[in-house]
Amino acid sequence: MTYADNADTPDADELPWQWREQRWRTITEKVRAGRSLKPKAWKDGARCAVALSFDSDHESTTLRFGQTSPGKLSQGQYGSRVAIPRIRALLDRHDIRASFFVPAVVAKLHPEEQRGLADEGHEIGIHGWIHEFNGTLPPDAERDLQFRAADVLEEISGQRPVGIRTPSWDFSQHTLAISREMGLLYDSSLMADDDPYEILEAGEATGMVELPVEWIKDDAVYFPMDRGTTLRPYTAPSSVYEIFQGEFDGAYADGGLFLLTMHPHIIGHRSRLAILARLIEHMKGHEGVWFATHKEVAEYCLAAAGEG
Amino acid sequence: MTYADNADTPDADELPWQWREQRWRTITEKVRAGRSLKPKAWKDGARCAVALSFDSDHESTTLRFGQTSPGKLSQGQYGSRVAIPRIRALLDRHDIRASFFVPAVVAKLHPEEQRGLADEGHEIGIHGWIHEFNGTLPPDAERDLQFRAADVLEEISGQRPVGIRTPSWDFSQHTLAISREMGLLYDSSLMADDDPYEILEAGEATGMVELPVEWIKDDAVYFPMDRGTTLRPYTAPSSVYEIFQGEFDGAYADGGLFLLTMHPHIIGHRSRLAILARLIEHMKGHEGVWFATHKEVAEYCLAAAGEG
Amino acid sequence: MTYADNADTPDADELPWQWREQRWRTITEKVRAGRSLKPKAWKDGARCAVALSFDSDHESTTLRFGQTSPGKLSQGQYGSRVAIPRIRALLDRHDIRASFFVPAVVAKLHPEEQRGLADEGHEIGIHGWIHEFNGTLPPDAERDLQFRAADVLEEISGQRPVGIRTPSWDFSQHTLAISREMGLLYDSSLMADDDPYEILEAGEATGMVELPVEWIKDDAVYFPMDRGTTLRPYTAPSSVYEIFQGEFDGAYADGGLFLLTMHPHIIGHRSRLAILARLIEHMKGHEGVWFATHKEVAEYCLAAAGEG
Amino acid sequence: MTYADNADTPDADELPWQWREQRWRTITEKVRAGRSLKPKAWKDGARCAVALSFDSDHESTTLRFGQTSPGKLSQGQYGSRVAIPRIRALLDRHDIRASFFVPAVVAKLHPEEQRGLADEGHEIGIHGWIHEFNGTLPPDAERDLQFRAADVLEEISGQRPVGIRTPSWDFSQHTLAISREMGLLYDSSLMADDDPYEILEAGEATGMVELPVEWIKDDAVYFPMDRGTTLRPYTAPSSVYEIFQGEFDGAYADGGLFLLTMHPHIIGHRSRLAILARLIEHMKGHEGVWFATHKEVAEYCLAAAGEG
Repeated sequence: MTYADNADTPDADELPWQWREQRWRTITEKVRAGRSLKPKAWKDGARCAVALSFDSDHESTTLRFGQTSPGKLSQGQYGSRVAIPRIRALLDRHDIRASFFVPAVVAKLHPEEQRGLADEGHEIGIHGWIHEFNGTLPPDAERDLQFRAADVLEEISGQRPVGIRTPSWDFSQHTLAISREMGLLYDSSLMADDDPYEILEAGEATGMVELPVEWIKDDAVYFPMDRGTTLRPYTAPSSVYEIFQGEFDGAYADGGLFLLTMHPHIIGHRSRLAILARLIEHMKGHEGVWFATHKEVAEYCLAAAGEG
Repeated sequence: MTYADNADTPDADELPWQWREQRWRTITEKVRAGRSLKPKAWKDGARCAVALSFDSDHESTTLRFGQTSPGKLSQGQYGSRVAIPRIRALLDRHDIRASFFVPAVVAKLHPEEQRGLADEGHEIGIHGWIHEFNGTLPPDAERDLQFRAADVLEEISGQRPVGIRTPSWDFSQHTLAISREMGLLYDSSLMADDDPYEILEAGEATGMVELPVEWIKDDAVYFPMDRGTTLRPYTAPSSVYEIFQGEFDGAYADGGLFLLTMHPHIIGHRSRLAILARLIEHMKGHEGVWFATHKEVAEYCLAAAGEG
Repeated sequence: MTYADNADTPDADELPWQWREQRWRTITEKVRAGRSLKPKAWKDGARCAVALSFDSDHESTTLRFGQTSPGKLSQGQYGSRVAIPRIRALLDRHDIRASFFVPAVVAKLHPEEQRGLADEGHEIGIHGWIHEFNGTLPPDAERDLQFRAADVLEEISGQRPVGIRTPSWDFSQHTLAISREMGLLYDSSLMADDDPYEILEAGEATGMVELPVEWIKDDAVYFPMDRGTTLRPYTAPSSVYEIFQGEFDGAYADGGLFLLTMHPHIIGHRSRLAILARLIEHMKGHEGVWFATHKEVAEYCLAAAGEG
Repeated sequence: MTYADNADTPDADELPWQWREQRWRTITEKVRAGRSLKPKAWKDGARCAVALSFDSDHESTTLRFGQTSPGKLSQGQYGSRVAIPRIRALLDRHDIRASFFVPAVVAKLHPEEQRGLADEGHEIGIHGWIHEFNGTLPPDAERDLQFRAADVLEEISGQRPVGIRTPSWDFSQHTLAISREMGLLYDSSLMADDDPYEILEAGEATGMVELPVEWIKDDAVYFPMDRGTTLRPYTAPSSVYEIFQGEFDGAYADGGLFLLTMHPHIIGHRSRLAILARLIEHMKGHEGVWFATHKEVAEYCLAAAGEG
């Protein structure tokens, strides 16, 4: 593709409806879904895979904006103090292993939490340094923070992370190259499918697995409150349950993956954790549902595709 | 009307409550609903017409803003990769032909998709070049893009488009003249009725059919998420189903038209496509429901009015 | 009150937490609820009064912003072309007289509509000239527009209006003086009670009746859509019905007034008018419910207080 | 901590992802949850404590912005004129004592209301001067307003306040020091737990009780309407009931505290107060539920911890 540089040298005077075909083709093909990695059957012949994940943002989503409000920080502390123990108890009761994506600053503020989760068999994955927006960083800063974050998680949890979820799913123009350089097994920030796929970079197969997310399967689109804007938790938990159950039911019918993103300080409230408990019971009521960490799902998909 | 030029030479110092009557009359009459084209009965004596449409925006609603986020573009790819096959399977199962409005850039990115839809008897209609906002374009650029978009769709799908849905329903001061110059059969972007009508231009009958839309019958008002604003998918699918069913039930009671606008990357999720499936079953449970493309509805209405 | 002028000469350097007591007292007492005008029983011994109102904004809420979008104007035309006939038929079927608040520009665009409503016994009230925001007008402009609006309504409908609902309930610092100068019977824009009361101006009784409104009893807070902002019709009609019924049920229990504000182009859609129909049936299922125009309610309240 | 000053002298050129560890640790530890004060059992062996609170903002949330709109002020008057009597009657019917947090300006505008509440055994707590945002005040202004507000409340109600709820839960960098200087028993503005805890200041135990709040248990996140923004009351009362009941049910199961924040002019509408009535009946249907004021809860927790 001779026009590959074009996207990096935009003509500021050119509006999108004036763009030449090369321009929008280059932009579109930069990071793209390649072949499906949905297996014919899941582990031990299971019909459906369920990957529960928790982004342990805690205080970091306040700190990343340079905010110092004691009230907002106390909301973050709730995630660690109240929500994580409740979530651990719920997962333990159902013998489920999940994936926790943890900013490095959060891991340093709450090291026992990460060690405890790792000891119980949960996965600890990369989630940035201080929940920064990758799209706003200089490329070498993004690379430096991602490498350092992996080291911090390894040091604290005893696990070397093999996967990343970009903070706020803000996958920059450079994220893929950094993750490939790190040799990560998977990313979990993109949305081109419900089921796993191989990521392409500028049309080239990367061998890296995407475990796709979507806002629809994220508690943080329905429940947050921000006093300074008009963001409000308008949706009843029973309606969020309806959506999550509908997504699982479809995945079960399709023999696919149901991947759910949650946040301890959001889902951990008494009236909300009840819907996760109910959802787990609903899913456990089906035969052939494999509960797995993101790492296990990615490894299984690669193996099923003959490359594990 | 001697005051016709007035609207084009606004006095910047004049506030609307200071406007002379000529001014607001001219603005109001520029594009207006004329006689109703609701027939006494629909095809083969059917009681009600149902026109399902899908605006295949895919990557274009990211590109039109000049955005290059891999995450947002992957959401668009979902529309083509996952949602369109699901929608085609659902329509095929129910033997329904629908209308797909496709920006030219999307048609070029996904030509097989358009050819496949056309081959299965679905209609391909104009939906701008790159989902641009018509209201922000120089008039000759709007004209040029609309003509070129029609050529691209014809070349790729093998069908010459006969109808337009303006991107974001942004019907400019010049859209009607351009569509008339192209000799289009119908527009589907205006909202003065639930049932088809003839469009008037400055009080003059145009012979062009309007197949009216409304936000209330559009999945994109209830479900989208935008991280940078407070747009959230707050409404449960069951509530959206309630609205859509209420609109159909009213159309059935009135012997009118039920026209629904959807977007593959929005409605195509597992938990949402289920409500379209349920709605189709609800509608098929009624006698005398004619499922038709927009083109078929417009042609039928003109014929019933003695001008087909 | 020696501090009365204070509110009109604010010290720009003084923040509200620095205000002297005189300042906030003057502001608070400018327009205020006085004695309750809730009668011991309603007409003919009825237990509860129901006053349905429709603000016929049609094209005016587009024009007032100086907008000329054919799409937005077609939404307004829907109000006159489709919604008003449906509403008239519904009210006629139930033999209910309601109040329509109509901007003068709307009355001039749709004079037959106003005449027809008046002929059927409905009330036509003042609703500004072009749905302007009173709070942004020079005081003499507000006065001029309100007087001219009343003349237009009288000329077109044959009724001299006796009440006002300020557009967007934007009751300015001057609205009360203007309405008193016009000798109006009532205002319906304030919110200090559910039941009628006498308005005080700077602590002095005015003899003018307030028929209070509230956003909670207004279809326009739940259903509108604005593409340029994040305003969306997120609430299901069944939930809006729940709210309206709850307000009526409470009014019935209290022997009070249930006053509902609607907008033809909003409530008139098939799936929404159904909830008004259902609500009317619910209310008619109770004994002792008096359906009345705003004028009738205000006159009754004054008479019951011995001043009619 | 040698880095304690760092947070107060931010380097404006340093972005959060560039911060040294000292910086984010200092910010995080400034005000923090310490040991839990959740007792083994509640008063007289009760299983669960319920603390209902009403923030009597009335006109103050209009005045604090320097707004003078008669319409908005009438909404505030509704709180005093209509809502407070309804709430008092409801609490009286169920023999429940609650806590009312009252800005000083509101207390001066409605002194009889505060006296009446105090006489009936309800608690009157600090809620700022004119509902100002503490985070925007000079520290000495915040201190002056808080001290003067306590004096006003004592003078009017006859009670010396022992607790504070910061207006808009805007707990500033200085609020804790001011409240400690005043010798307050408790704060109720932070969110690090569902159950009571001791507040730490820079790692040091303060002896002050936090009775934590959360947006999830606040009527003001679901119901308000602001014409100038996109804030709307999108959530049905039955959905808000679902959330509140879920929070109570969880607190009952955990043997914890259910603390609910309401606002008279918001919850006091007929269709909304019905959900509070229903919630009280639901809670009274359980054995071992102790209804108490915030003061009683804080005193009990301290006593149970051996420090009362």
